[in-house]
Order: sequence, then C-alpha cells, then structure tokens
Amino acid sequence: MAVDYQTLAVEGVQSLTPYQPGKPVEELAREYGFRPDDIIKLASNENPLGPSPRALAAAREALENLCLYPDGNAFALKEALSRHLGLAPAQLTLGNGSNDVLEVIARCFAAPGSEVIYSQHAFAVYPLVTLAIGARGVEVPAKNWGHDLEAMADAVTERTRLLFVANPNNPTGTVAGEKAIRSLMDRVPERVVVVLDEAYCEYLAGTDDDVNGIGLLRDYPNLIVTRTFSKAWGLAALRVGYAVSSAAIANILNRVRQPFNVNTVAQVAATAVLSDLEYLERSREVNRQGLRQLEAGLTDLGLEWIPSAGNFVAVDVGRDGNEVFQGLLKEGVIVRPIGGYGMPSHLRVSVGLPEQNERFLKALKRVLSATGA
Amino acid sequence: MAVDYQTLAVEGVQSLTPYQPGKPVEELAREYGFRPDDIIKLASNENPLGPSPRALAAAREALENLCLYPDGNAFALKEALSRHLGLAPAQLTLGNGSNDVLEVIARCFAAPGSEVIYSQHAFAVYPLVTLAIGARGVEVPAKNWGHDLEAMADAVTERTRLLFVANPNNPTGTVAGEKAIRSLMDRVPERVVVVLDEAYCEYLAGTDDDVNGIGLLRDYPNLIVTRTFSKAWGLAALRVGYAVSSAAIANILNRVRQPFNVNTVAQVAATAVLSDLEYLERSREVNRQGLRQLEAGLTDLGLEWIPSAGNFVAVDVGRDGNEVFQGLLKEGVIVRPIGGYGMPSHLRVSVGLPEQNERFLKALKRVLSATGA
Repeated sequence: MAVDYQTLAVEGVQSLTPYQPGKPVEELAREYGFRPDDIIKLASNENPLGPSPRALAAAREALENLCLYPDGNAFALKEALSRHLGLAPAQLTLGNGSNDVLEVIARCFAAPGSEVIYSQHAFAVYPLVTLAIGARGVEVPAKNWGHDLEAMADAVTERTRLLFVANPNNPTGTVAGEKAIRSLMDRVPERVVVVLDEAYCEYLAGTDDDVNGIGLLRDYPNLIVTRTFSKAWGLAALRVGYAVSSAAIANILNRVRQPFNVNTVAQVAATAVLSDLEYLERSREVNRQGLRQLEAGLTDLGLEWIPSAGNFVAVDVGRDGNEVFQGLLKEGVIVRPIGGYGMPSHLRVSVGLPEQNERFLKALKRVLSATGA
Repeated sequence: MAVDYQTLAVEGVQSLTPYQPGKPVEELAREYGFRPDDIIKLASNENPLGPSPRALAAAREALENLCLYPDGNAFALKEALSRHLGLAPAQLTLGNGSNDVLEVIARCFAAPGSEVIYSQHAFAVYPLVTLAIGARGVEVPAKNWGHDLEAMADAVTERTRLLFVANPNNPTGTVAGEKAIRSLMDRVPERVVVVLDEAYCEYLAGTDDDVNGIGLLRDYPNLIVTRTFSKAWGLAALRVGYAVSSAAIANILNRVRQPFNVNTVAQVAATAVLSDLEYLERSREVNRQGLRQLEAGLTDLGLEWIPSAGNFVAVDVGRDGNEVFQGLLKEGVIVRPIGGYGMPSHLRVSVGLPEQNERFLKALKRVLSATGA
C-alpha cells in the first residue's frame, strides 16, 4: 500500500500554499510569444535603475573565486554594514534575502503552539514562516490599509512569541511613525520578540515618515530590525538581507542560519554598493518622481490608490484585479494582483522608469475601457 | 529585569553549536600576516581547478540583471538538470547549497519528538538541522569509519521520521555499494524518509563504488537523493544544491523552501556548467591523481589514512589533530581538524593541485617532526 507523503509532512507544512512570486518576464515571453525586450515588469518592487556600477564591478571580480566557499562569517560585509549603520558587527545576522532572516527569526523563537501576530494585508512571508513551523498565526485587522498597532498590542497573549510589523508595509505602502512604534514597544512585554521589517525604509529618507528602527534598539532589547539589499540598493538578484538586534539575539539567530547562506557574489556586491551613496540617492529620486507620476496618472483614470511610502503603489481598479492583471499581461505589462493579500480589487504596481510608468498607465487605460466597470 | 533571550529561544536552538566552516584564507592572512597568495587551503573540499569557463561566462552575463529577482521556479536550471539526470523537473527541489535542501527536508518531515537517525562520523549538518527543530538525533556507531547500515535499520522506531546516509561520507570518505543501500531500503518502513546525500557522487564515476541513488528512486518512494554543484562542478561560491525525489515529495519540499533561495548568478552558472562535461572529467582526473599522491605521501610519513571515495582524505596523525592543524596554519596551510566529528587524532585534507598536495605533505612532515609522536 502506497504511503501518502502529504500526510507524513509535519502539520503546518500540509496546509502550506507557497509564496507566489511576480511573474517572470521569460515566462510571459514563452506563454504569449513576446520578445522579452517588449515586456515591462512592474511586479516585484525591483529597482528600475539597473545595478550600481560599483556593485557590478565588485561582483565581476568575485567570479574568479567560484570554486571556493563563501566566507561563512562574511567579515568584509559585516564590517562595511557596521560602519554604515554605526553599530557592532556582533549585532548583525545576514540572510539569503530578508526572507531568510525572517524565517530564521521565526524558527528561533516560535514553536508548535506559539502564537505569532501580524497584520491583515501584511507581507505574505509572515504567515508562511509561521505555518511552516506549526505555530498559530494571529492576523489583526488593518486600519485604513495600515497596521493597527494598538489592536496588535491588544492581541498579545501568554502564548505570543513573535510580532511582525512591516514598516513601510508591502503591498499597501502604509507606514507608522516613530511615536506609534514606540508606543507599541512600550505595551508589548519584553518576552515577545518584535520584528520591524524595514525592507523599504531607504525610501523614507527625507520624508515626514522617516522612522529608523535601529535607533530604537537601545531602548527595546526585544526588537529586531530587518532590512534588505533587494530594493533601493538594487541587488534583488543576489539575495542579501540582514537583521539588526542586540548581540544576544544575533548570537541565537546566527546559530540557526545556514553557515554559507549568503553567497560570495552577494557578499562582495553588497559590500561594494554600501559605498555608492550616489546610487542610493538616484534610486530615491527616481522613485519619488515615479510615485508622483503614477499617482497623477491613476487619479486621471479616476482610480483610488493608497498613499505609499515604498517603491510601489496599490491601486483599486474597481473590479476583479486578477482580470485586469490578465488584460495587462496581453499588453506585455506585468503587475501584481493582490487578491492573496485580501485585496481582490487592488493591483500593486512597482515604480518604474518614467517611460515604463507611462506605458503601464496607457495599457491600464486600454484594459479598463475594454473590461468596463 | 532584563529578559534572557537565550531562554526564549526554542528548546533545540538553545543547545545548538553552529557549524564550523573551514578557516577562510583571508582570516588566516589577517591573523598571521601572510599574503593571501602564499596560503593554500585544503580545508573545504573545494575544486582546485578553478571554475568552468562556461560557468564563468554565463555568470558574467547574468550580472546585468542584478536588480531583478531570480526566477523563483528556476525554469532553465530545472530543465537542464532534468535532461542531465533523465527525470521530470517536478521531481527536483533546488536549494541554496545542499545544506539548504537537507534543512528543508528535516523541517518538512521531522518535528519536536521525532527521531532522526544518522551515523557517527557523518556530515555535521544532520545533527544540526535535527537539533534546530527540537527533534531527537539518534547517532548510530560507525563500522570501520563507515555507516553501519544494518545497525541504522535496527535503530528505526515508531518515532523515526528521517534517516540520513552520506554516500560517500564526509569526512571519512567511506562509501556503501548499491546492494547495501538496497538492503537498507528494503528494511526501512516506507513511512520513514531516507535521505541519500550524494554530495561527492561525481567522484565515483568509473570506480568500483559507482552507486547512483537516482536509479533507486523508482523502487523506493520514500527515498530522497541530494546533490550539489559545490564539489566536482566547482561552484561552491554560489550555493546550488538539489534534491531528487518523487514528484509528491518534491511538491512538499518546494512549499517550504524559500521562493528565491537560489540566486540568479547561481542558477545561470549551474545551468551552464551542466553542459561542460569536459570540466567534470578534468575535475575527476585531477582528483584521482591527487588522491593517489596524498595516499602515497601519507604512507611515506608512516601515517594511516582512510581510503576515500571523495575529494579529500582523513588521516590519523597519531596525536592531537588540532595541534597539528595549528602547526600547519603557521606554515600557511589550512586543513580541517575533525575532533568535532569524534575523530580527534585525524585531520581531513582536501585534494588540491599536485603542487598544493606536495606543499601540504612537506609542511605536515615538518610539523610532525616538530611536535613529536
């Protein structure tokens, strides 16, 4: 009698639905017969600028050592990051993208039976890593599309081990200010680890919402701040994220992360890009202008959108978002339907270069007229 | 009162000691004031040939897309691997090195309370991933430095969920033949998942020990074979490993792996190297000759070594291995002490190029005369 391996999987894994990445350009090209160059992808919140020349040059040089294992302690990258952030290397935990770091945190502090709190419409990886462990996810309803931090603090019980806050949040783009974060931290007991996921924080610089979780670490030892090189730093292909915490928490996380979780090319390119502050500033500028362009264009189309602090905007298309997504695919434009985030009539569109934003807006106009309201 | 985060970590994590990687060349250079070029590292079972030109060219080209996320489904790499291995893409699960795959397997099938069986002197990652989950590791005593497969089958209980076999084993280099593996599989109940870790299998080609776990998949649905691009394929820097199994098991593993766990450069280089069979053959040839050279040299020094089917050899230095390791560091030669594997008087030395093997042997001779027996 054949064994059903599905039933042999641990409990949480049995009910897991994998994360749905943005549709790759090559896949759309294969399916619809487009040339890849004719497709624009505004689906994964990628940096439209292309890579930093410094990162590129460093990565190219690192290729000579393909046969050698990465430095498991990532000496150079940790040194560069600790200088950049003004903290000790022992406070850092590197990951294969921040996804890896988020998973390691969950595995360190949550077990079957634990409760893990996160918000409605928050980043999909929080429920995924919770479920995979067999812990219980507690989803707190959102307020104006953003985290209801008061309600999240109210949701803490004896069994709560972890609380995730995405700031800014993906896919809604909402952000909580420092006062609101502090007031959450003041209410959450110290035995609950709070993860402040700042994947998009670089886009806040110079805005009214410019909060910085790392500045809060001194006051809240149960805080972990996570960040990534995949967005404003333009290295999504390489997968580098990191956690900043007390050295005591980092010591625990570093035991569980895989010893070679960040590969050599990734380490080298991330180290190099940290010295390219001009690239970072250009990333921000292109994003600022692109956001304004998208907001104006969407308003012209009579659509409501959620004000965003990230490099994307969630827009209510007033009908089934998946249908509009499919229509845009036929135009060679890939955006992200977010029905899976409980937002069935919204699409998330990443900020592209001016001509890409323009092409998206025109394609959206055509698709909306074709599908009717 | 300050919270002790160590006690907040889940049970297994509290007692975890991280994997100890081979000492990086740069670290030794920093500590002893060597020039990196004057150091030889035979500590991590890396391919001494340098990368395949095809892999290198493909990786270089991929750098243009650093801003874009990897293909989460790794379409091209899975196609290439499935052609190479003669199986369906749906049977594959890719990982950030085989370490990642081994961890994902453990997390899918073991939970707190489960038992996981592995051998004494086997690859250190098995107990690590077991402990991190809070499952119970059952270490079965080795026989002649190799896996005692009979005793491992005897160790299966109602609570056993996983059984790891490293074939060839690292760090001992021992290998079990097809008959012995089949007889293990015939005895283990189908509800127990057996992982045949073939990280070093490419070095078996053309030898009497040429076993291939993939050929056994049809007969044993509870079998998972894991492999890597880090050894004979020469891509350790990039972290690409994979599991081959039934599509049913792969479906479970693919839910738990992180969606972008293999980065773009890694995917592209691994896809390209699969077409470079000449490189693979050269890797094997250099290894065959280097193993003979090391064996002869160690015998000349009057030392006992364990016959190896891998790209390394474990040698009994007849005194504290760590002391000899330290002595070799001062000579600019990095090998691996394996006291942590229960082999305190052995060192593991990776097969290098002829001149590296020669330099190691001469340095070892000096260190042994200096430290006395």
